[in-house]
Amino acid sequence: MQFHHHGYVSADPRVAPAAGTGIDRPANLPDEMDVLIVGSGPAGVTLAAQLAQYPEVHARLVERRPGRLEVGQADGIQARSVETFQAFGFAERIVAEAFHLTAMNFWTPDPANPEHIVRTQRTVDDAFGVSEFPHLIVNQARVLDYFAEAAANGPGRLRPDYGWEFVGLEVGTQGEYPVAVTLRRTTGDGVGTERVVHARYVVGCDGARSGVREAIGRRHLGGQSAHAWGVMDVLAVTDFPDIRTKCAIQSAHDGSILLIPREGGFLFRMYVDLGEVPEGDNGKVRTTPLASIVDQANRILRPYTLDVRDVAWWSVYEVGHRVTDKFDDVSVADTGTRDPHVFICGDACHTHSAKAGQGMNVSMQDGFNLGWKLGQVLTGRSAPSLLATYSAERQEIAQNLIDFDREWASMMARRPEDFASPEELGDFYVRTQEFPAGFMTQYKPSEIIGEDTYQHLATGYPIGKRFKSARAVRVADANPVHLGHHHRADGRWRLYAFADAPASGQSSAFADWAEWLASAPDSPVVRHTPVGGDIDAVFDVKVVYQQRHEDVDLARVPRAVLPRVGPFQLVDYEKVYAVDPDAGDYFDERGLDRGGVVVVVRPDQYVAHVLPLTAREELSAFLGRSLLVQH
Amino acid sequence: MQFHHHGYVSADPRVAPAAGTGIDRPANLPDEMDVLIVGSGPAGVTLAAQLAQYPEVHARLVERRPGRLEVGQADGIQARSVETFQAFGFAERIVAEAFHLTAMNFWTPDPANPEHIVRTQRTVDDAFGVSEFPHLIVNQARVLDYFAEAAANGPGRLRPDYGWEFVGLEVGTQGEYPVAVTLRRTTGDGVGTERVVHARYVVGCDGARSGVREAIGRRHLGGQSAHAWGVMDVLAVTDFPDIRTKCAIQSAHDGSILLIPREGGFLFRMYVDLGEVPEGDNGKVRTTPLASIVDQANRILRPYTLDVRDVAWWSVYEVGHRVTDKFDDVSVADTGTRDPHVFICGDACHTHSAKAGQGMNVSMQDGFNLGWKLGQVLTGRSAPSLLATYSAERQEIAQNLIDFDREWASMMARRPEDFASPEELGDFYVRTQEFPAGFMTQYKPSEIIGEDTYQHLATGYPIGKRFKSARAVRVADANPVHLGHHHRADGRWRLYAFADAPASGQSSAFADWAEWLASAPDSPVVRHTPVGGDIDAVFDVKVVYQQRHEDVDLARVPRAVLPRVGPFQLVDYEKVYAVDPDAGDYFDERGLDRGGVVVVVRPDQYVAHVLPLTAREELSAFLGRSLLVQH
Repeated sequence: MQFHHHGYVSADPRVAPAAGTGIDRPANLPDEMDVLIVGSGPAGVTLAAQLAQYPEVHARLVERRPGRLEVGQADGIQARSVETFQAFGFAERIVAEAFHLTAMNFWTPDPANPEHIVRTQRTVDDAFGVSEFPHLIVNQARVLDYFAEAAANGPGRLRPDYGWEFVGLEVGTQGEYPVAVTLRRTTGDGVGTERVVHARYVVGCDGARSGVREAIGRRHLGGQSAHAWGVMDVLAVTDFPDIRTKCAIQSAHDGSILLIPREGGFLFRMYVDLGEVPEGDNGKVRTTPLASIVDQANRILRPYTLDVRDVAWWSVYEVGHRVTDKFDDVSVADTGTRDPHVFICGDACHTHSAKAGQGMNVSMQDGFNLGWKLGQVLTGRSAPSLLATYSAERQEIAQNLIDFDREWASMMARRPEDFASPEELGDFYVRTQEFPAGFMTQYKPSEIIGEDTYQHLATGYPIGKRFKSARAVRVADANPVHLGHHHRADGRWRLYAFADAPASGQSSAFADWAEWLASAPDSPVVRHTPVGGDIDAVFDVKVVYQQRHEDVDLARVPRAVLPRVGPFQLVDYEKVYAVDPDAGDYFDERGLDRGGVVVVVRPDQYVAHVLPLTAREELSAFLGRSLLVQH
Repeated sequence: MQFHHHGYVSADPRVAPAAGTGIDRPANLPDEMDVLIVGSGPAGVTLAAQLAQYPEVHARLVERRPGRLEVGQADGIQARSVETFQAFGFAERIVAEAFHLTAMNFWTPDPANPEHIVRTQRTVDDAFGVSEFPHLIVNQARVLDYFAEAAANGPGRLRPDYGWEFVGLEVGTQGEYPVAVTLRRTTGDGVGTERVVHARYVVGCDGARSGVREAIGRRHLGGQSAHAWGVMDVLAVTDFPDIRTKCAIQSAHDGSILLIPREGGFLFRMYVDLGEVPEGDNGKVRTTPLASIVDQANRILRPYTLDVRDVAWWSVYEVGHRVTDKFDDVSVADTGTRDPHVFICGDACHTHSAKAGQGMNVSMQDGFNLGWKLGQVLTGRSAPSLLATYSAERQEIAQNLIDFDREWASMMARRPEDFASPEELGDFYVRTQEFPAGFMTQYKPSEIIGEDTYQHLATGYPIGKRFKSARAVRVADANPVHLGHHHRADGRWRLYAFADAPASGQSSAFADWAEWLASAPDSPVVRHTPVGGDIDAVFDVKVVYQQRHEDVDLARVPRAVLPRVGPFQLVDYEKVYAVDPDAGDYFDERGLDRGGVVVVVRPDQYVAHVLPLTAREELSAFLGRSLLVQH
């Protein structure tokens, strides 16, 4: 965490000094704004927290409820989400509070007595080490709290405008604020009254029954399956021995349970199989009472019993799988002819079962993907055409999610005798864990994703996938750090230079590259950094040397990685790294060429490009695709 | 973190439900209270955070300042303090914010050119692994903020009463609130007016010039040394390459610098040697201007230069070493004849140089030591005689601190030619690190510290030293956890049973002990738990089995370690542990006898006793020394 460089900070450094629109932000919803976010769910608050990092942008978030969400439905937090929390500055706090999911056990009918269940398999979560971050379970309300706090503490001081419901919108073609949005007051004085506000951009984070989606004429494709589930968050006494372990429990005749332990050590969630829904049921299954769900759970758990003492939340639902055809207001036919002004994120785009624990996670990534793009366009760093990449990138991810979830949900609903072996379900779970952990996303080449010409120079950094951190030693203070954990959601691009073999001060490809980067007219740093901005305002340039930290002489590293910043023009020492032999050599860990390589990482932590240190023109050309020249 | 067991918690689980005096706590300072803490420095806020965990106790904290401290002087946080922060629930947050001190370098005059300094030694902080917690540097104001937050979020909802200055006190012999304290208003309406309040106990955490100390006639023994130092927290540009590393820098002719990098990546502190103070100086050295300190620093650093751009704080001081003869109002002659009612903590008891980074740390341990004793006495768990152990335990620690600090300060002030070798200072630093890390404290046998009869059964748990955590696996959820990190500052005693070899469900010494503990009339749990209280209200009983977690059958562990708690009588599953082979077998790591052993740990995390599982009478007798029978 870096601070004090604008002068001494006495209080919590997580609270950034207010700047720009954050200084005199109107307390009430104004008539005009740059961005209007509709809905404060996981996608909306992520977007808000990101836009609060751009104090030049006036963003507002309207929410129908009169205040904070009290009980949320989602609870699964994949490792990629924790990585995202790290970028927004609250990972350590939510990690301390959440349940850590480290194992999943599988129970099936006892072959000796099929009326009873027995444990047939134990599996380890993240058996292949896809992430250094944990897999967590915590109530969605807390996730929203942390993002809301990050938004309020950002320089833009973004706080939700509660009590406003979305009614409709029209996209005009004139003026600075072309989108006219009608809102209705849901609370307090003037409840029920409507008003029209105007925005440059509108983002619908308004859930599965999204009004914004409907207003832009997008189609939500798919349907219900014929299977119903009861879900309940309960405090109960049971003799089932794995009650604090995630379990898939299959009974012989009564269907299955997915058991999820929850934060705090006592609460747990059960998804209880309510069986096939007969044709023409017309939602009648949704009137199943809680007592029936508890009875069904007791039947499935035999010989164990469940004595429910308190219920925090419960519901009945039929599994639905739907995905929207496009995530912005520009139809497929018009794509490329005009820039989008309305977007949809999260459940507004994709709905599916809860059991793979994906919904909230994918929604946050929708918000993270769109947030920096809006910020970059609205601050003049990129042209508005960048915004078309949001739908292009995220629609495919949503489709993959639906496909994965359909497979997982149908396996969970299968009868024990339909599996080839008692281990089949567990084996599927272990084999496919990279997907639910959130790391299978790989964006295709575009103006912000390069081609794989030089991929062989950094085999551990697949272009289009998120930058996987590894440990290095910060030279200035001999601190072992996870390099990627210092990538904050501050809207900046990262250029990670992995140096060639010569030490600091010796002639090297890295030294030449760094000198070019700091001074050449065609350097992306020189071209894209705003006049008067700190030299690291757009690009955070870091180097990892192949030497140990004692062998890197700070007096001889290039100025590009010892930039002067802030009003006192102090040296930033947190750009220069060495390998950490205690953690495995970084170059070996990530398959990095010892002749040196540059890994370009987007503000949302995805690897944008891999290039040799000598490919200067290609680096400039790639970044010039999406970034505007600033002078 | 355990919660939800009294029903669903929607918001931050760190905020405990208000209880007892926390429910209708008077906003203004009342006339009578159980405990009056004078001063909101490190000792005072630690004590406040601890007493907020006892909602039956009405404690108040008065502070002369009108509000929060803006800039503190202390900044060194030893690992023992971070361990304490963990107990108070905010370690992960302050760790994320602080500078991590991992190395210390030593610079001495260059033999080839003594006018210039050269690096002669690099040392690693905590080379011997005394703690799994880091050594941090962060402004004292932030430490106070976190403790104040913990106090406000505790069930007692303790918030400081700002704007009250201590004037004097008298200890009476009559009534429930025998101590009459005169306070003066320092701010707002009625500034300058005095009032008298009455308390059962008063604690002076009012610093080196403590009025409480004076009021009880304690003597502060020792004096100034003849050496002066300038200290400054600065933002500066320098070519000194180790500016982000802790360094001891000795010049040939201009004295020395102790350099401490600070949180945030830019700020650093320098203690600059201002030389011997001539006799009869009468504090004139304290008028040394900042510019002279900066000039002196530049002379010491040659050939490097220091260009100071901004100064957060600076001061000049002469090293003093003083310790108070006793830390309560009962004179040595009267000890044992009456119970103390007034205590002093922190700088009121011990003052010394800042350079070993000890003051704030030892002060917090003073507060932690006294806090649970006051809580226990005021809730009727122990007799008031327990309070005499505070001075008995902490006065010796303070004396050790003064002795260590005097040695370290005089070594720092020595001239290079007075050392046997250039490495002598660095070697001393590495060799003695357990002391400044805060782990050399070892309390002597008393009513709360047992004798070492069975010490050989747990060689890694020296009686009287703090319980050093190790990793185990929580059986119920297969979570690898640091056992000691779950010891919260909740006023409870811990009984850690390390089981003998038989597995759960087999006949074993542990099973017999656990059954006795749960039900026998002479069991300490049965005797000392208040009627109607949860079975784990006074003792948190945990077991570590010698098996792996898969081989511990939760259905067959004794009920003493699967207690039913809270209004729903839910099972607490966080008491049963297994070894973690990935982290080294716990029994081997801590020298535990495989025949089983009980380690008794006090509420302030110190090992109180080590006993075999069969020594039931001795366990009962030991705990009966300080705990009262509840029925």
